[in-house]
Amino acid sequence: MTKEFKAAMIVIGNEVLSGRTQDKNINYVAKKMVSCGVRLAEVRIIPDVKETIIDTVRTLSDRFDYVFTSGGIGPTHDDITAESVAKTFDIPLEQNSDAYDILLAHYGEEELTEARLKMAQIPVGGSLIFNPVSAAPGFQIKNVYVMAGVPRIMQAMLDNVAGVIQGGTKLQSRTIPCPLPESVVAPGLGEIQTVYPDIDIGSYPHFGDKSYSVQVVLRGVNETELDNAERDVLSLIKKLL
Amino acid sequence: MTKEFKAAMIVIGNEVLSGRTQDKNINYVAKKMVSCGVRLAEVRIIPDVKETIIDTVRTLSDRFDYVFTSGGIGPTHDDITAESVAKTFDIPLEQNSDAYDILLAHYGEEELTEARLKMAQIPVGGSLIFNPVSAAPGFQIKNVYVMAGVPRIMQAMLDNVAGVIQGGTKLQSRTIPCPLPESVVAPGLGEIQTVYPDIDIGSYPHFGDKSYSVQVVLRGVNETELDNAERDVLSLIKKLL
Repeated sequence: MTKEFKAAMIVIGNEVLSGRTQDKNINYVAKKMVSCGVRLAEVRIIPDVKETIIDTVRTLSDRFDYVFTSGGIGPTHDDITAESVAKTFDIPLEQNSDAYDILLAHYGEEELTEARLKMAQIPVGGSLIFNPVSAAPGFQIKNVYVMAGVPRIMQAMLDNVAGVIQGGTKLQSRTIPCPLPESVVAPGLGEIQTVYPDIDIGSYPHFGDKSYSVQVVLRGVNETELDNAERDVLSLIKKLL
Repeated sequence: MTKEFKAAMIVIGNEVLSGRTQDKNINYVAKKMVSCGVRLAEVRIIPDVKETIIDTVRTLSDRFDYVFTSGGIGPTHDDITAESVAKTFDIPLEQNSDAYDILLAHYGEEELTEARLKMAQIPVGGSLIFNPVSAAPGFQIKNVYVMAGVPRIMQAMLDNVAGVIQGGTKLQSRTIPCPLPESVVAPGLGEIQTVYPDIDIGSYPHFGDKSYSVQVVLRGVNETELDNAERDVLSLIKKLL
């Protein structure tokens, strides 16, 4: 049995909780983790409140291999993620010289205002995460990866991170369109689940205006088990049709 | 000072964490809460794991006025929300007679199989939440509202719930398009924030392929304070242009 790697994501954003913004980052992180062989185990969306950020980062950092945060790393007063994450680990913030150079190259000396310099404040010992869109970097400290909230930037940052984090065996999936109502296949699916405890078997109905359809999804790391479980689900459907 | 009402949402769904499904319910709940005068204070997306559901429901039920769950109330083996919520409060499940009647009317006696009857298992004392799409009801027990994961059904259920829950003063917002970069207005916005501690002032940049724009958003319950803060932000922009 190889080690399984698990991650959590923290979306820091009043704008998501107030409904002003529809989050676009969670699904991107979820898919990227599958391709990295990492299981996204929990997501929390929390407000821009320092104590809440500290509590949440601490809890999830203890519990999971990786924690990804999005949001709150810009130049304004409500961008408090860096100071909150530093405080979580009792590590001071400092002006990171690499971050300073990046911002200097991007803005030039005259435009590198105090507000912009705030974006070079990184916890001591943090590693920068490159931002190809608007220069201001994210950073990694311990197992926490601090990224921007703007989707284009977050996604570019995550692509960089995904290239270097360690994952385990990649989760594979099989999707089986099911021509029967969920409740008809339910007892048989339950039995198949007990035969394959390491495969996650889910069934997902879709209710259209005039249509109803179901997909059965199998997820696991062992290809042979997946093949066998898929065969059993198809036999079940055939028997019930 | 009137009481502020706070809610949390729990999305129960392996399919969201695996990236297979893009959640569409969070934003709907977020907007609906604004219109109810309730502040959505936290969202958690968790897997279909009984212990995790119990822990999460217990924690958030203690902490907030309302908890909304979506997902896991269908007829299959992976639909474990009702039993998990019942277990959270040490309340037994029973076949709810109203839920039974609803399912009987929808399916007819012959089609009301054991799998479908699972959807009539409701914690003792729970109140049903009507489902106009596929009959199987959600339910409320204590301050927890258990709803379906399928967006059409969840949204219809939430509309029913929204009509009866108690809210406080509605949060108002002002959105001010800002023709200056975030970092230019940052120091002034920070000062305005200290003048109006009860107004949430956020600034949200958008990075297009060839464009950059910023919106300043003010949120609060006091119209006069919002008007004053808006006037101050406009003065700040005028001064800096």
